[in-house]
Amino acid sequence: MPTKKSALDQVRGFIIRAIKAGIKKSGNLDLGLIYGEREVVGAGVFTQNNVAAAPVILSREFLQQRKGKVRGVLVNAGNANACTGKRGLALATQWVKQVASGLHCTPEEILLCSTGVIGQQLDAQIMFRGIDRLLAGEGGAGADFTQAILTTDLVEKTAAVVLKNGVRIAGVCKGSGMIAPKMGTLLAFVLTDAKINYSLLQKMLREIAALTFNCVSVDGDTSTNDTLLVLASGARGEKITSAKSANYREFYRGLLTVCQALAEQVARDGEGATKLIRLKVNGAKNDELANIAARAVAQSPLVKTAMFGNDPNWGRIICALGYSGTPMNAEKTTIALCGKTIFRRGTPQKFNADELSKKMRAPEVIIKIELGMGQGRAEFLTCDFSYDYVKINADYHT
Amino acid sequence: MPTKKSALDQVRGFIIRAIKAGIKKSGNLDLGLIYGEREVVGAGVFTQNNVAAAPVILSREFLQQRKGKVRGVLVNAGNANACTGKRGLALATQWVKQVASGLHCTPEEILLCSTGVIGQQLDAQIMFRGIDRLLAGEGGAGADFTQAILTTDLVEKTAAVVLKNGVRIAGVCKGSGMIAPKMGTLLAFVLTDAKINYSLLQKMLREIAALTFNCVSVDGDTSTNDTLLVLASGARGEKITSAKSANYREFYRGLLTVCQALAEQVARDGEGATKLIRLKVNGAKNDELANIAARAVAQSPLVKTAMFGNDPNWGRIICALGYSGTPMNAEKTTIALCGKTIFRRGTPQKFNADELSKKMRAPEVIIKIELGMGQGRAEFLTCDFSYDYVKINADYHT
Repeated sequence: MPTKKSALDQVRGFIIRAIKAGIKKSGNLDLGLIYGEREVVGAGVFTQNNVAAAPVILSREFLQQRKGKVRGVLVNAGNANACTGKRGLALATQWVKQVASGLHCTPEEILLCSTGVIGQQLDAQIMFRGIDRLLAGEGGAGADFTQAILTTDLVEKTAAVVLKNGVRIAGVCKGSGMIAPKMGTLLAFVLTDAKINYSLLQKMLREIAALTFNCVSVDGDTSTNDTLLVLASGARGEKITSAKSANYREFYRGLLTVCQALAEQVARDGEGATKLIRLKVNGAKNDELANIAARAVAQSPLVKTAMFGNDPNWGRIICALGYSGTPMNAEKTTIALCGKTIFRRGTPQKFNADELSKKMRAPEVIIKIELGMGQGRAEFLTCDFSYDYVKINADYHT
Repeated sequence: MPTKKSALDQVRGFIIRAIKAGIKKSGNLDLGLIYGEREVVGAGVFTQNNVAAAPVILSREFLQQRKGKVRGVLVNAGNANACTGKRGLALATQWVKQVASGLHCTPEEILLCSTGVIGQQLDAQIMFRGIDRLLAGEGGAGADFTQAILTTDLVEKTAAVVLKNGVRIAGVCKGSGMIAPKMGTLLAFVLTDAKINYSLLQKMLREIAALTFNCVSVDGDTSTNDTLLVLASGARGEKITSAKSANYREFYRGLLTVCQALAEQVARDGEGATKLIRLKVNGAKNDELANIAARAVAQSPLVKTAMFGNDPNWGRIICALGYSGTPMNAEKTTIALCGKTIFRRGTPQKFNADELSKKMRAPEVIIKIELGMGQGRAEFLTCDFSYDYVKINADYHT
């Protein structure tokens, strides 16, 4: 039975497969493999959590050691292989070797990503059998891979662009809980057929991660497994050789668009979320301070529950700004909600609360904050805090 | 109709009154006054939020200016007088003058505390009339005052001790939402008849606040109105003259006990809380790092929802420790829940999950964390995150 076509499949130079290996209790798709027809260039950003999962430890080391020389990446959902000690790391190393042997490359050219429950050993035999099936050519392509990486996600998350010269950039990610700034989301994979070297791609990815995935929070909890990978096959377009070239800038904009779209889908699909909240902070002393202010508002449970209740409660917003650590002064601060200014330079503004509350029942709410202290600005995405967030996380038993 | 006797009333040298002034929509008790029969010594710690309410601005200034020379404190609930601009501050100044004139002292000897909704002007006439009634001797004493300061609190919060020499220390506080470390809880008042000077009392209070109220979090949101005041009438016992004296140490222990008991009641009565969570972190590199680690676990929505669901999910605990910023290593970390070690030096321990989950259904859950990095230790109190937290804060419309 052919699976539906995904944007991932249209990026030249990659082979994608995904199967039901038996890791997820639900029996759904749970093991995927992406590899280059030839060697590809890989760049990645990983969790900054002190407790890094075995696959993060391996992938981070391999990528640095081989300076972006990558052949493929193996991904499983249903088990994070985090806090699994020496055995977890030893098993991860074996699986990587098995994939490398099948693809006739060195183990250090295979990256590994896992997501799911923390602290349980992944079943070694299930993985060995699954990898054998993938190497034998079993499994669906991009569309199945997109599903295979999901855990508590309700929807698939993909984004793609085609550049003028025909180069494609297609990404897919997963994540809806344990999502916090300071790193990528749980797992994100971007494939491109652009021709670019490791150092340029890695530099670009760090900048873009800071502007996209690192500006998203669902619950302020930074996972042990966060990984954002870009793999470039070089199968299309002229080689990008300098950060000052026109094709670098075009590719940069393309990758930014894909990462922005993916990050936004993570916030929109936050656990229990009923709406996306887009925070725009302007007028901080610098961009970093704007980001700190935005993050404090985005992570405030009081702001997030007010958004769920469609309550234009600017008091909680200004309270969060006040404790954020960013220099601010209520007398210089202006807050607009859904386009309506509700607090201007220290003074509450008159507004029709019922009307505004009705507007807040949209799938997307924009909060604009002007601090009046300088030129710093930041955008930050989050979601509201609902009964379902509590339900999902109180019921998700280990 | 006489109200029941409160421990507050047994502290010598104070007069306490509280009435239904008409600030709360519910019509409950909402305005209170405590004043010394003579001048008393006051010490206070206030919110570190950049956005401080009018009463905080006044009280903080008065206390410093008059070096702890205080006559009384006026407290209202139902309106925070925060983000009310120049008018809010001007009104607060007028009410303070009105009280001072009635008590024949200077306005700077009157402190002011408010709690309730942010960003609405307090009705000036309601306050003028209320203050007149209080000054005319109307209103119940300690028990009524204890109720008059409550907002979303479900229970009254009081604590008292009697020292060997007969000196009494009795405290009362309120707060169950917008509660976060780095300051006192919303409002806390401790009365004592001890004889002590301002500088000793203020120094002691700072130390004790850091160990008690600043180690409590309900939702990580630091209020605009947090105030912890201690008033000492000097009506009983020998004068405490040195931080090295035996009576200083006894009084210190007494004040610590009262503040600890009050802080614990705040966490236990956190909005929507079904249980108290007592975090004990040992083995950090120093006490401050232990506190940072404890705070990260206490503020993690994933840990808090797991506690609500009676789920012994140590993965979320170690994840929060990992991103806390405190140096740690899973291989050196041990976690015990309700007395049961579930993770020891990097290795998940076998345990009966059903049995442990049953134990977690207690009104108090203890999480012990050993980091194995040094001698630093901290205790931190929080509560679980339930449907009712969302309900209370999504429905509490402005």
